[in-house]
Amino acid sequence: MKLTILGCHAATPRWDASPTAQILQVKGHTFLIDCGEGTQVQLRRHKIKFSRIKHIFISHLHGDHFFGLVGLVSTFRLLGREADLHIYGPKGIKEAITLQLKLGKSWTDYDLYFHELESLETEILFEDENISVSTIPLKHRIYTNGFIFKEKESERTLDINAVEAANVSMSYYSKIKQGHDVVNEDGVLIDNKKITLDPPKPKSYAYCSDTAYNPAMISKIASATALYHETTFLELHKDLAEKTKHSTAKEAATIAKNAAVEILILGHYSGRYQDLNAFKLEAEEIFTNVLLAKDGKVFEF
Amino acid sequence: MKLTILGCHAATPRWDASPTAQILQVKGHTFLIDCGEGTQVQLRRHKIKFSRIKHIFISHLHGDHFFGLVGLVSTFRLLGREADLHIYGPKGIKEAITLQLKLGKSWTDYDLYFHELESLETEILFEDENISVSTIPLKHRIYTNGFIFKEKESERTLDINAVEAANVSMSYYSKIKQGHDVVNEDGVLIDNKKITLDPPKPKSYAYCSDTAYNPAMISKIASATALYHETTFLELHKDLAEKTKHSTAKEAATIAKNAAVEILILGHYSGRYQDLNAFKLEAEEIFTNVLLAKDGKVFEF
Repeated sequence: MKLTILGCHAATPRWDASPTAQILQVKGHTFLIDCGEGTQVQLRRHKIKFSRIKHIFISHLHGDHFFGLVGLVSTFRLLGREADLHIYGPKGIKEAITLQLKLGKSWTDYDLYFHELESLETEILFEDENISVSTIPLKHRIYTNGFIFKEKESERTLDINAVEAANVSMSYYSKIKQGHDVVNEDGVLIDNKKITLDPPKPKSYAYCSDTAYNPAMISKIASATALYHETTFLELHKDLAEKTKHSTAKEAATIAKNAAVEILILGHYSGRYQDLNAFKLEAEEIFTNVLLAKDGKVFEF
Repeated sequence: MKLTILGCHAATPRWDASPTAQILQVKGHTFLIDCGEGTQVQLRRHKIKFSRIKHIFISHLHGDHFFGLVGLVSTFRLLGREADLHIYGPKGIKEAITLQLKLGKSWTDYDLYFHELESLETEILFEDENISVSTIPLKHRIYTNGFIFKEKESERTLDINAVEAANVSMSYYSKIKQGHDVVNEDGVLIDNKKITLDPPKPKSYAYCSDTAYNPAMISKIASATALYHETTFLELHKDLAEKTKHSTAKEAATIAKNAAVEILILGHYSGRYQDLNAFKLEAEEIFTNVLLAKDGKVFEF
């Protein structure tokens, strides 16, 4: 999985810092997650091909997470896009985007599908043979979802020497890869584990922004390969975090620890902090593997 | 008058070129004209104080002229703005902005006034003792207005030596500055012109974007100090200009010449042209005083 941070700063765009947007590239997909103002410029800057984006996931309808969406949708049209585009986001997103396109008499030539969300339970938004994308209900001032992108378990790998030694007919190979025990040419039942190797562990990426401290998400993100968790504030401003339903670095790290994820990526920093390393230091008191998101940074896991 | 170009490129934002927005500073006002995506970042970059902006004029509801408005309105709120804000633009603009604020439950704390336009005739949008702002109906694919900012004629300046020599009572000085002839202490009628000097010629700035070639605007902008006229295309692509209701550099220059303006500023260049100087050269075949807009450029006139 390759995660490109297009923006990771809270609230207002600054000339040197962009609001939230990120690209997750996995199994041939290029998923866009959130779309703050200026996302189309950040996509250009970081050389992400517009035509590869077919699914956009919007966490919530605060401006720093979606004001760039209508511009991107319009630009796709100007570039002559033909491929369908799917947008997943809170109820109301369709009206907000379509109203603006209608006012400009610039309806898209490509097919635009809105998948409006209002459930408070986890739902699967997208699924194919390789991957699934589901919501993670979050706790914020307005209706908000995180998203978890999960690779599916691959087939088992044939241990070709063991298979040949076990005298199994080649016609069974595909059944074996699916994990079945099979009977060999001598009529003996062969234990699948003895003739196959474990496939690579499926990876998963959980995106949780914006949210107050919310232990209810732990079961949804348990053992994720990487967790991006917002940390708008430091513990020093815990009162503000509570008031605005955001999290501190310590709270993000507590979630990461209790969900036993492998990597914690912090982001969505309030503009009040000059030294972002303070977020890392605060989180590292609770959890070891902490990375800081930064505009333009790429994480591979 | 001081004009700062925040963006002057057509259609989609690029990492090195912004869509339309400009700031006109005149007689203590800071007027924002159009507001493409990323305008708030450009305002920061060019150190324009957000709190000074009290009037925003939107020409039309194509994205490259207004997709930055909702973000700016939201940022004003986050910065604790208290002053009123007036937005002038085509009917529909209020619904587009307020719907998005409502979805984010982030209504402004300051008073936001929308002045929705639908007239096909010139109207005065704003007026005080120093300046007036009126619409210039334009010809584009959707309802569009240009704007003309006109300084008012100042009072006449007393020619103090002449006034004293004419033996006029000081109690008449304010009448004299207003241009009246007065009777002096000896009962003689004194011609105003003989005891006053002409005030400086009032300046005016006309903004015309987006528009097809439209001679109907000439009477509205006659003798303007400066005219910003769109030139999306060169004559080479006159067919595209006609099809999309934009202008060529030659057409912009023809308008400038026939309106006898002092300066023509070109902008709203299509992304297809690498060398912007071609616009200047084409316009200079018709009109002498041609300047090219460029992101960040400041014009004083």
